[in-house]
Amino acid sequence: MADKIDVMILCGGSATDLPVQTPKMASLFNVVDSFDTHARIPEHFANVDAVASQSQKTAVISVGWDPGMFSLNRLYAGAILPDGKDYTFWGKGVSQGHSDAIRRVDGVADARQYTVPVQEALDAVRSGSNPDLTTRQKHTRECFVVAKEGADLKKIEEEIVNMPNYFADYDTTVTFITQEELDKNHKGIPHGGFVIRSGKTGFNKENNHIIEYSLKLDSNPEFTSSVLVAYARAAVRMNKMGMTGCKTVLDVPPAYLSALDDYTLRKTLL
Amino acid sequence: MADKIDVMILCGGSATDLPVQTPKMASLFNVVDSFDTHARIPEHFANVDAVASQSQKTAVISVGWDPGMFSLNRLYAGAILPDGKDYTFWGKGVSQGHSDAIRRVDGVADARQYTVPVQEALDAVRSGSNPDLTTRQKHTRECFVVAKEGADLKKIEEEIVNMPNYFADYDTTVTFITQEELDKNHKGIPHGGFVIRSGKTGFNKENNHIIEYSLKLDSNPEFTSSVLVAYARAAVRMNKMGMTGCKTVLDVPPAYLSALDDYTLRKTLL
Repeated sequence: MADKIDVMILCGGSATDLPVQTPKMASLFNVVDSFDTHARIPEHFANVDAVASQSQKTAVISVGWDPGMFSLNRLYAGAILPDGKDYTFWGKGVSQGHSDAIRRVDGVADARQYTVPVQEALDAVRSGSNPDLTTRQKHTRECFVVAKEGADLKKIEEEIVNMPNYFADYDTTVTFITQEELDKNHKGIPHGGFVIRSGKTGFNKENNHIIEYSLKLDSNPEFTSSVLVAYARAAVRMNKMGMTGCKTVLDVPPAYLSALDDYTLRKTLL
Repeated sequence: MADKIDVMILCGGSATDLPVQTPKMASLFNVVDSFDTHARIPEHFANVDAVASQSQKTAVISVGWDPGMFSLNRLYAGAILPDGKDYTFWGKGVSQGHSDAIRRVDGVADARQYTVPVQEALDAVRSGSNPDLTTRQKHTRECFVVAKEGADLKKIEEEIVNMPNYFADYDTTVTFITQEELDKNHKGIPHGGFVIRSGKTGFNKENNHIIEYSLKLDSNPEFTSSVLVAYARAAVRMNKMGMTGCKTVLDVPPAYLSALDDYTLRKTLL
């Protein structure tokens, strides 16, 4: 099938699936993946690049919104306003990792965790004051928990709010609800967030500029897959242009994402 | 000097300067220009491309924020959410063209005009309701006018608010102030705006997504020049890679804008 498939979209997990699957598939096909473990991107890039350079395929890794669209916006904003500061906020949205962590607490039947950006922190950043913000000042964590019958609610709450890495560094609220309430009111997987750069220009740095990119998504997986599809189109075009090897969203010429031809883009969008 | 200059940044007017200067300079140098007459971009592109393709130089035209960063955001958002609708709002900011138009009214000594997006329209777009908005519903125009001594204020106001193309299609307010007030409170050239795409996904289009990009600029010319400088860096790199001819922001690989190398970008920004 290697000559019949333009591009493969790989949506496996970043922990153990994609580190194996993406290099393997890139030996035969153009690929796009959603690898999202930020700290391991250089290593994943090197592994995929070795294969794709050899096979003359195009492999675009770490596509989605963060890494992905948020990364792009950090890049553009930083290149335009070098004398400035970046802020990334996530939410309001469901963190599946944090929801899972709560479900592993003794006495918990089900749970849903929302990451919520702190409005005062957003306002301070938008004011151009370039604040230094701690983890606790940027986001709060809201947990909706269904306890098993007879469970010790006080103990569950304490275990959650003091959980290292996940909750201890945040102001965390725990609200106990019924399974029916959870199914009814917390079924969706919304997410989103903000990338804001605040920077100065002028002989005396007297002018401030705010560049803000934000997403408000009803469905995190459906939006992420929409980004992957757009980059799949780009991967095929880049391959036809001889741009082979491993790439990221930072390397892809924007026009390659669009179904419209270059002339129409210039005429209607520019 | 053709071998000593990496790139020329052309900041002339779009009406008569750049249509002549950009092709002329592109015969000898890599260039970046700020051509911003949207309707004439295809024609300008063709003229510049003919020269730059011949000279093997790279010419990036229509760089700034609209056209420019706003165009890029319309492209990215539309490619990701094909089933959706774009909205561009400008302001709050000073429109130099509209301020000039007021200054030409009989009896006017000086003037400053602000374009202001209508909050209710922004809110409606952000709600995901995909409203159809008229010109009048999207923006208002606020005029601060210094009248000459003895001028007929009522007549000035009527002439402004009924001026075709500039004001007749908008809700326009005229406030008469003194030259001192204008110099003190309306000296800056702030601008900005919003590009918002609202789009649907899901088997039954049941999920809505909002992508929003916004700028809040203390100085329109200083921000625009900051964008030009970043694209000047990219133009030189593209030329070294053999990407010659006329280009727009839609063609430039994002990483080319940054002073950081690709490895560092992947490690720190992605």
